[in-house]
Order: sequence, then structure tokens, then C-alpha cells
Amino acid sequence: MSSSTMNAGSMSNHFGLFLPTILSQSNDEQLSNWLEPTFGGKIIGCYAQTELGHGSNVRGLLTIAEFDKTTQEFVLNTPTLPSIKWWPGTLGKAATHAIVYAQLILDGKEHGVQAFLMQIRDENHRPLPGIEVGDLGPKMGDHANDTGFLRLENVRIPREMMLAKNQEVTPEGKFISRTSSGNSKSHYSTMMLARASFIMMAGAYLARAVTIAMRYSCVRRQGFEDTASTSFRAPEKQIIDYQVQRYRVFKQLAIAYAFKFSSQWLSNRQAAKKGGDEKDALQDLKEIAATGAGLKGLCTYMTWEGIEDCRKCCGGNGYLMVSGLAPLSQDYVWQITAEGDYILMILQLAKFLLSTYQDAVKGVPVSEQCDYLADIAKPNFNSEALRPPAAKSFRDFLDLGVLLSWYKYRALVTLVDVAAQYTGKLSEGVPKDVAFNECALAGTHAVRAHCFYFLLRNFIQAIKAVADKPVQVVLTQVATLFGLCLMIDENWGGCLSRADLSMVKQANAHILDVLRPNAIALVDAFDIPDRVLGTALGNADGNVYEALYESVKKAPLNQVDPYVGYDQMQKYLDLDILKKRSKL
Amino acid sequence: MSSSTMNAGSMSNHFGLFLPTILSQSNDEQLSNWLEPTFGGKIIGCYAQTELGHGSNVRGLLTIAEFDKTTQEFVLNTPTLPSIKWWPGTLGKAATHAIVYAQLILDGKEHGVQAFLMQIRDENHRPLPGIEVGDLGPKMGDHANDTGFLRLENVRIPREMMLAKNQEVTPEGKFISRTSSGNSKSHYSTMMLARASFIMMAGAYLARAVTIAMRYSCVRRQGFEDTASTSFRAPEKQIIDYQVQRYRVFKQLAIAYAFKFSSQWLSNRQAAKKGGDEKDALQDLKEIAATGAGLKGLCTYMTWEGIEDCRKCCGGNGYLMVSGLAPLSQDYVWQITAEGDYILMILQLAKFLLSTYQDAVKGVPVSEQCDYLADIAKPNFNSEALRPPAAKSFRDFLDLGVLLSWYKYRALVTLVDVAAQYTGKLSEGVPKDVAFNECALAGTHAVRAHCFYFLLRNFIQAIKAVADKPVQVVLTQVATLFGLCLMIDENWGGCLSRADLSMVKQANAHILDVLRPNAIALVDAFDIPDRVLGTALGNADGNVYEALYESVKKAPLNQVDPYVGYDQMQKYLDLDILKKRSKL
Ligand SMILES: Cc1cc2nc3c(=O)[nH]c(=O)nc-3n(C[C@H](O)[C@H](O)[C@H](O)COP(=O)(O)OP(=O)(O)OC[C@H]3O[C@@H](n4cnc5c(N)ncnc54)[C@H](O)[C@@H]3O)c2cc1C
Ligand SMILES: Cc1cc2nc3c(=O)[nH]c(=O)nc-3n(C[C@H](O)[C@H](O)[C@H](O)COP(=O)(O)OP(=O)(O)OC[C@H]3O[C@@H](n4cnc5c(N)ncnc54)[C@H](O)[C@@H]3O)c2cc1C
Repeated sequence: MSSSTMNAGSMSNHFGLFLPTILSQSNDEQLSNWLEPTFGGKIIGCYAQTELGHGSNVRGLLTIAEFDKTTQEFVLNTPTLPSIKWWPGTLGKAATHAIVYAQLILDGKEHGVQAFLMQIRDENHRPLPGIEVGDLGPKMGDHANDTGFLRLENVRIPREMMLAKNQEVTPEGKFISRTSSGNSKSHYSTMMLARASFIMMAGAYLARAVTIAMRYSCVRRQGFEDTASTSFRAPEKQIIDYQVQRYRVFKQLAIAYAFKFSSQWLSNRQAAKKGGDEKDALQDLKEIAATGAGLKGLCTYMTWEGIEDCRKCCGGNGYLMVSGLAPLSQDYVWQITAEGDYILMILQLAKFLLSTYQDAVKGVPVSEQCDYLADIAKPNFNSEALRPPAAKSFRDFLDLGVLLSWYKYRALVTLVDVAAQYTGKLSEGVPKDVAFNECALAGTHAVRAHCFYFLLRNFIQAIKAVADKPVQVVLTQVATLFGLCLMIDENWGGCLSRADLSMVKQANAHILDVLRPNAIALVDAFDIPDRVLGTALGNADGNVYEALYESVKKAPLNQVDPYVGYDQMQKYLDLDILKKRSKL
Repeated sequence: MSSSTMNAGSMSNHFGLFLPTILSQSNDEQLSNWLEPTFGGKIIGCYAQTELGHGSNVRGLLTIAEFDKTTQEFVLNTPTLPSIKWWPGTLGKAATHAIVYAQLILDGKEHGVQAFLMQIRDENHRPLPGIEVGDLGPKMGDHANDTGFLRLENVRIPREMMLAKNQEVTPEGKFISRTSSGNSKSHYSTMMLARASFIMMAGAYLARAVTIAMRYSCVRRQGFEDTASTSFRAPEKQIIDYQVQRYRVFKQLAIAYAFKFSSQWLSNRQAAKKGGDEKDALQDLKEIAATGAGLKGLCTYMTWEGIEDCRKCCGGNGYLMVSGLAPLSQDYVWQITAEGDYILMILQLAKFLLSTYQDAVKGVPVSEQCDYLADIAKPNFNSEALRPPAAKSFRDFLDLGVLLSWYKYRALVTLVDVAAQYTGKLSEGVPKDVAFNECALAGTHAVRAHCFYFLLRNFIQAIKAVADKPVQVVLTQVATLFGLCLMIDENWGGCLSRADLSMVKQANAHILDVLRPNAIALVDAFDIPDRVLGTALGNADGNVYEALYESVKKAPLNQVDPYVGYDQMQKYLDLDILKKRSKL
């Protein structure tokens, strides 16, 4: 049913989570034993971290691994209901092995969460002794994936099965750690890679949705061009020419472009950090990692919002699975939650911004990303000084420089205002955690303001590098629209005056009209083949009605005549009336 | 799969759409023939209006009904691909009859869209000659409904089958209409009834979602109370005590209450209009109808947003169908689109507001709903005079009167600013349709501002009528939260100053804490039985983990061992490795 599922079956978990973990956390001996069968698909693995009771709080996992010196084995248990592993993809039915995260306990002492490679099914694909395993049942989407649970009762695995790149347990049961903390360069790199890939996918998925919605909106006609016309045969308007429809679809187009450019920026920055000095790079890496977290949260959320709005833009037909948009929405939406719930990701960046603010006030230089804080340590600094001059005409808001200055100003004041509250609480003696929580919602606003400034700035920089002038012109219009849309749909209370907001709306109406002729070119430029779109509404040939009508021939209910259950229903019908034909 | 489907099978279309249409559009003879078999379920009917090519633009339908005097029959055709009926629920498999909307053509002259009762399947449940009928295929949700298509080729039905309450075709083929236009009282009443029911359902559905999310948020613990604690056994926080989570869930709670009160208001107003003078009531009815349209659009959209946010508030578990929230979201979302796409509904109210504005400027008195326009015709009227005084402390924003004055001010300026643009265009000679379209997006903003003012005012009025003082106190807090949330999440640019917005956020943080102790009481007050919630996450007993673990036993994939397709997979596995057990 769900043709555009992202995790096309078990293999994506095996190659996307299991293999990378083996690669990054095994010692040399483990690598030489495990890599070949893993690469070759001779075993099928899953990544079992989350439990019934613990997702976001990984440190609180309750699966326990104790070491039995006499047999040189770890004994693994999920002693309580909340400690059952819950959610790993591929675990439900297909996996033979799992990387199980568990609390290592040696002689009663806790040594934190460690990863263990564990066989879970035998050569007949039956669970090994002590193991209860199965599927979690139907999900909202992502149907191609068997998402599982795992219960362990005294399951024993050899000492060598603890992933031992950075730590190990000696035969005597001593714990040896080879890293000081998680603050290593490689730690950040791994996290960033995962996050950058979410942001890249966000742009790609949104582009798919927009391609369908834009094409449909140019083919679909609804509503008479002249509403006073009396004949039902009067010419009708393409729905893309209704301002609200145009706004909705082009807005998502602009966001998709923005995400694509910022994910490129992130990848480039990461690549640049691969070499170089460990210490030098760490602060910078921390910043990129925090930005990556915030963007993972924001971009996955906005992408799903955008997919859904594109789907609704197709009216009733968007509700059909053959739209390609309905499955896209259902299969994508978990990316907001998994591998870092979006609110937690956003709060991570909020924490970083607050501490950057505190540093900046003390005069510590800030990076390019937080350049709006640059002057904050200066005596008599007043954030209102950064407020852009009042616009004279709506055309002022068509200038990318002007827009960027507004976003910069907003990033500044939103952060300054929450920081004032936060530091106020701290100075009253409120504990850090409590103070942060009490400012958390305002913190998410600061993150949004920061990220939108970041996205717009990267967009503008990317455009500067475009060599093809006509393309540069159109991309400039798209970036302008991006800036204007988020001035209309975000809360700019406290920033824009009433006259400003009115002009922003006029500028937006103007740029939408300017962009209209390039509607199709701008989605064709994403270059997504029909095969990937999997849609009846948005194929390149524009034959919407033909494709829809073709699709019903394959509808499952149409393969059975009359229908399963008709026998039951027939009893209540009055067959005599039906025999009389329409003459009730 | 989708247990909380609203249209629990064919009968909801039969009784919810087919029957009411028969009731409201038949003449006495038709009623006496058709009512008994319809009530008794001896025939099963559907409502076939939408076509492949036409949904919102009903006037543009392309199905054609021509009258053949010689046989005294109508001949119905769907001559082109876009004219195929597309979307009627129950049509796909179960229906024996359909109300088919078609363009009536007599001697080549168009007589508008008329409704025809038509038998479509015979006593063996086979399509009658000339009819091609079937299901549309898988949808995003609403799986219990067989949504269909219908192709007609010279299908003949007797003259008596045209629904003839207000019009008929004589045996000589003359068209007789008994109403002047659609502007009758009954016309408005029927529409309003449908819309009021959407708004009522919106409140009810959102209440279900909030009940689940609130209970889960009070049971679920995630994250250490003291983040510095080192043991994984340290106590954890209830997630409702994270500010962002608390905000998200309580916000939806407040919206659900607001919807409930406004839908009561709407029902009461309609009931009051049932008697009385036709002419007197018409203007008032027009206003209630326009408000009903706008609210249908806004409330269905916000309800779905709220269901989805409640779902996401449950983390990964919200993605499981047993959450009760996942199917709620998928089964509800079409209500935004069907029976009036939400944007069209909102634009309908926008049009009404613009014309009310134009009247008000001329001195025509305005109703209570648009009271913010009351003084607009006065000389030297300045909308800024309605701006509430600057707040002195965040506590000012805890006053419902103050909040309402802000909403009133915002409704005024948002409308005034778009009206200025609109009338400006008109005076430049831009045609009305074009001018409206060019202001449409800003028009939707005016509608939102109007509706939020309306919702808050009704909420406040309803609270005044509550006799139980402690209940009144808590409801006042809920209404306050409602007002604050939408000052935070809507664009209050041009209204709130930077200092105001900061105080709004403080007031919001405060009221969230005040409401916390009543978290469970406020959802228990909705009084929704577990049976209706259909959830593993939010049952009244709070046994979340037990219910989740129970649910996997029924998971379809767990009924087959190992799994369908294992044979294929086995070929690639290395069974020797698997025999060796975890010793790779
Ligand atoms: C489709 C899918 C596939 C998955 N695949 C895997 C897999 O292969 N392997 C695996 O191990 N896991 C997997 N997961 C699990 C996933 O990683 C978790 O669902 C995710 O980490 C969120 O955790 P949770 O579900 O426990 O939510 P919770 O942490 O319980 O969050 C619930 C709510 O509380 C809030 N909250 C929680 N903590 C805080 C805090 N400290 N501050 C503020 N708010 C907070 C959240 O914002 C959220 O709204 C998968 C999940 C899904 C949906
Ligand atoms: C689950 C479900 C059940 C249904 N059941 C029935 C049923 O039983 N019987 C039946 O007859 N129909 C039924 N329908 C059809 C439903 O009434 C239509 O889908 C609905 O009226 C919207 O029309 P549309 O799909 O043609 O969208 P369109 O009108 O094509 O809208 C597409 C887009 O264009 C925009 N747009 C269109 N016109 C305008 C305009 N004038 N101004 C501005 N924007 C515009 C819309 O906002 C939307 O974004 C059902 C639909 C669904 C999804």
C-alpha cells in the first residue's frame, strides 16, 4: 500500500544502522570477524536501543548486562516490563542478530550503557532460548518494516560480544575505557553525519511532494474564470492561479530549495572538519553539531508539514494512496520522532544558544552563525539598534539584504529576550535545569528565529555562487519568497510594525506572481523521475485523470464481486424493490 | 486497522447523506414512496455529487441529464473522463441507489444542477446496464468506507426520479421552479446544520486526542529529575512537567473546550432562528452561515493539527495504530477537505467580512460578531484607538477582559488592512473577482483573527453561565490559556510590541503551572469511555505498558512463524554461522 516507504524492508536497518554501528564501535578483532558476514548479508542485524520505557533518555535504559567470570559470559536481562526492547526495525521478524544496548554492571557497579552484539534467532529462524521476540503491530505507515520487541531472560553471550572499540571488560571482570568522554571529535562526527542525512532527506522528500502538488495545481481547473458566467461549460481557472493555492505550493517549493542549500552547507562544513587539529576543531564542531540537531528537529517537522499541505492542496484526490502524497506523509512522519525527537533536538540547540549568549556577553568572540551576538558585549549595547529601518514601500521587502537584516534582528531579540529571563532566574538561584525548563518554550522560539536566519543566509550565499545568470535571478526570487513566507506564518509580534506586515503581504503577493511562469520549471529542476514519485497526480506528462481512472482497475475491492460480506447485507435488502428497477 | 473510523461503513453515508437529501429535497409523493425503504435500510443509498473533474465547483459538474419526452425518461450520461462521479462513499461496493447530481438540459437549454434518485445495482448486486461502478482504491484512512466511482452511459430513469420539492419537469418537458434562488431560509438552515455538526465533531475528536495525550503524559516518565545524576535508576520526570510538552497538550485541551462552547453557541443560534419571520432572519442567517463556513474550515483544520500534535506528544508510541491517535489522525483528516474544502470555507467568510466592512463604512449597523467594526463610520475613526493600553506586568495578560480586547483589536486591524487593499483595487477598476483573489491570503488572516475573537468571546460568555464556582475558576484558566496560546502561535506582528510578547510568554508559563494540578480532571471531564478512545496509551486506568505489551500478541505478523517470504531470505543467510550461536 505504501509504495514510497523509506525503509524499504529489513535491509535498510541492517545496512543503515546495524552495519555503521559495527563499523564505528568494534575493535579490530571484532571487525575482522563480523564485517564480512554483515556486508554480505549472511546475517541480518537490527539496532536495539529503545525500550518500552525509554526512548529519549538513553542513559535511563533498563536492560542489564552482568558479567559471569566463571563462564566468561555476559548475562543479559530485561527484568521489567518497561525494559523490554521496543521499536527496533527488522527485529520483529527478519533479524538474526541485534546490537543490544544495555547497562553494564560489574560486581554491582554501574558502567553505563554499552553495546552488545547478540544472536537472537537460530538456523531455523526460531528465537534462541530466553528470548521472546515479535512485531509491534500495525503502524501509521512504514509498512515495509517489521518493527519489533525483544524480551531477554538470562541470555548468555561470550565476553567478546561487547563492542570494544573504546572500552572492554577484561577476563577478570575489570572495566577499561579508552576515551575520556563523549566529547571526542569522532563522537560529534558520527552524530552530525546522521543529522545531516536527515536534513538532506528532508529537502529531497519535500521536493517530491512539491513536484506532485505543483504539477497537479497547473493541470487541475476548478471554478469559473468569470464567476458570473451562467453556463456550466464556461472556462475554468487553473487552481495554481488562486492566490492561497499559489502561496501554499510555492512556499513549500521555497522551503525545499532552502533545505537543499543548507544541507549542502552542513555536509561541506563537516567534510572540511575531517582533517585538522582535534582541539581547534572541537568548539566549531560543537556548534555545527548543535545546529545540526536543531535543524534535524525543525527540518523534519517542516518537511512533514509541507508534504501534508501539498497533499491537501490536491483536494480529495490527495487522500488517495495513488496520489503518492498520502503514503509520503504517512511514511515520512516518524522521522520527526525517531533518532532524536524534534523537540529534544530543538532544545539542544536552545541550550547551545543560551550558553553562546552567556559567553558573548562576557566578550567571547562568536562564530558566523551567531554573528547577531557579535556586539553584545559592547558597552551600551542596545538590541534595538539592529532593527532595520522602517520600509518605505513594499518593494523594500523584495530585497534579500533587507530581508536578511530583519531575520538577523529577529534572531537577536528573540534570543536576548529569553536569555534575559533565563539568566534572571539563574541569578535568583533557580537551578540550571529548572530555569531552562521554565524558559523552554521561549527557547524553541529563539531556535526557530536562529534557524530561519541561518537558512536564509545560506540560501543567499548559495545563490551568489550560481554562475548561470537567469537561474540566479529565479533563485533570488525563490529565496525572497522563502523570507516573506516565514514573515507571514511565523509570529513576528514585537518585530514588524503593522505597516511593515502589510507591506510584507504585498511583497509576497507580488513575488508569487513573478514566480508563476516558472512554476513547472522549478519543480522539473528537482529532476525526480515518475518512478520515484509513484503518483497518479503529478507525473511529468500531466495526464492526471487518465492515471487516476487507470488506477481504480487495480483497486483491491474491485477484484471481488459483489464484495465480502454481501451475503450478510443481502438479508436486509428488499430484492423486490430492486427487481422493479428505478421505479421505487 | 482503523478502529476509530468515523464513517463506520456504508450506513453512515446512507443515513448521513442519502436520507437527509431525500428528506429535504423530495416532494410529498416521492417522500411517501421512498422514505420507508430508505429508513428501513431496504435499499442502500449514496450521495454522488463530486466528479473526477469537479469537487469545489459544483456548478461546473459535467454529468448530464436530458429529458426524453417520448418515454418520459431522463437519460443520464457522464460523457467525458472528468465527468465520472468520483468520491461518493458507499458507492464503491455497497450501494444499490445513488442520488446523482447532474446538469439538467431541456431542448438544449441548461437548467442548472439537479438531483436524481437512481438505482445502480440490480437484485443480484450487479451494475445495471450502462453503469460502470467500483471502488477508488486504498485511502489514507477511513478504511471502513467503500468510496466509489460511477460512469453512466445512456442510463434511463423515470421522470419521477428527479427530486422535486422545489422544482420539476412537466410531462411536456417544461421546467418549473418553485423557489426564486438559493437564498431561502431553508437553504441556509440545511447548510448550517451540516457545518455545525462538523464543528461539534471537531471539538469531540480533539477531546479524544487530548484525553489520550494528557493521560500518557502523566504516566510516561522520561529524563532524570536531576540531570546530573549518574545512576540509571535515578527518578525520572513525568513528561507533562516539561514546559514544551505541557504547552502542547494543554493548548489542545484549551482549543477543544473552545470548540465545544462555540459549537453550542452555533446550535443555539440556529435553533433560535427556526421560528420567526423569514425576511427578518435572513441577514442574520447569512451571517451565521458565513461564520459557520469559516469555522468549519478553521476548526476541522485545527482539530487535525491538534490530533497530530497529541500523537507526536506520545513519541514513537504515537506512531502505532494501537495508540488510538494514529488512526484518529488518518481517519479524521479528510474532514478538512470534504463537504467544503477548508480554504474555500474560509474564503467564504472572508468575502462576508469584506462586504460587512464595506457596509459598516457606509454606516450600516453591524451585528455582535463584527462589533469591532461598530464605530468605523464615525468621522475621524482611527483603528489604533482600539489598541489596548500597554501592559505593565505579565499579570495583565492573565485577565480575560484584557485578552479579549487584544483579540478585538487584532480582528479590527487585520480586516481594516486587507479591506483597504481590496477597496483600493476596486476603485482602481480591478474587477471584483480579481481584486478578491489578489487579497485572498490576507483575507484568510482576517478570518483567523475574526474567528479567534469569536471563539474567545463565546468561551468567556459560556464561563459566565457556569454556576459551579470552582469549575468556573478552572475554566477561566483554560480560556486564558486559549487566548495566550494563540498570541504565541499566530502572527501578532503589527499588534504586540516586543515587551508585550515577552509578557505574554511569561503569562503563558504561569498559567500552565496553575493548570497542572487539574490535568487529569480536565480530560476526565470530557467523559470519553475507553471503548471510544480505542487506545493502549490513554485508558482511564493508566496501565500503558501493560496494554502495549498485550497488544503485540494480536499483531498480524506475529500470527505467522517465521514469516511470509522467509524462504527467499533464507537462501542468503549463512546457516553455519547461525548454528554456531553468538560466536561469529
Ligand atoms: C518508525 C520508528 C522506527 C524506529 N526505529 C528504531 C530502531 O530501529 N531502533 C531503536 O532503538 N529505536 C527505534 N525507534 C525509537 C525512537 O528512537 C524513539 O521513538 C525516539 O527516540 C523517541 O523516544 P520515545 O518514543 O521514547 O519518546 P519519549 O522520549 O517518551 O517522548 C515523549 C514526549 O516527551 C517529550 N520529552 C521527552 N523527554 C523530554 C525532555 N528531556 N525534555 C522535553 N521534552 C521531553 C518529547 O518531546 C515527546 O513529546 C523508532 C521509532 C519509530 C517511530
Ligand atoms: C473521504 C472523502 C469522502 C467524500 N465523500 C463524498 C461523498 O460521499 N459524495 C460526494 O459527492 N463527494 C464526496 N467527497 C468529495 C469532496 O466533497 C471533495 O473532495 C471536496 O468537495 C473538495 O473538492 P475537490 O476534491 O475537487 O478539490 P478541488 O476543488 O479540486 O480543490 C483542490 C485545491 O484547489 C483549491 N481551490 C479549488 N477551488 C478554489 C477556489 N475557488 N478558490 C480558491 N481555491 C480553490 C482548494 O483549496 C484545494 O487546495 C469526499 C471526499 C473525501 C476526501
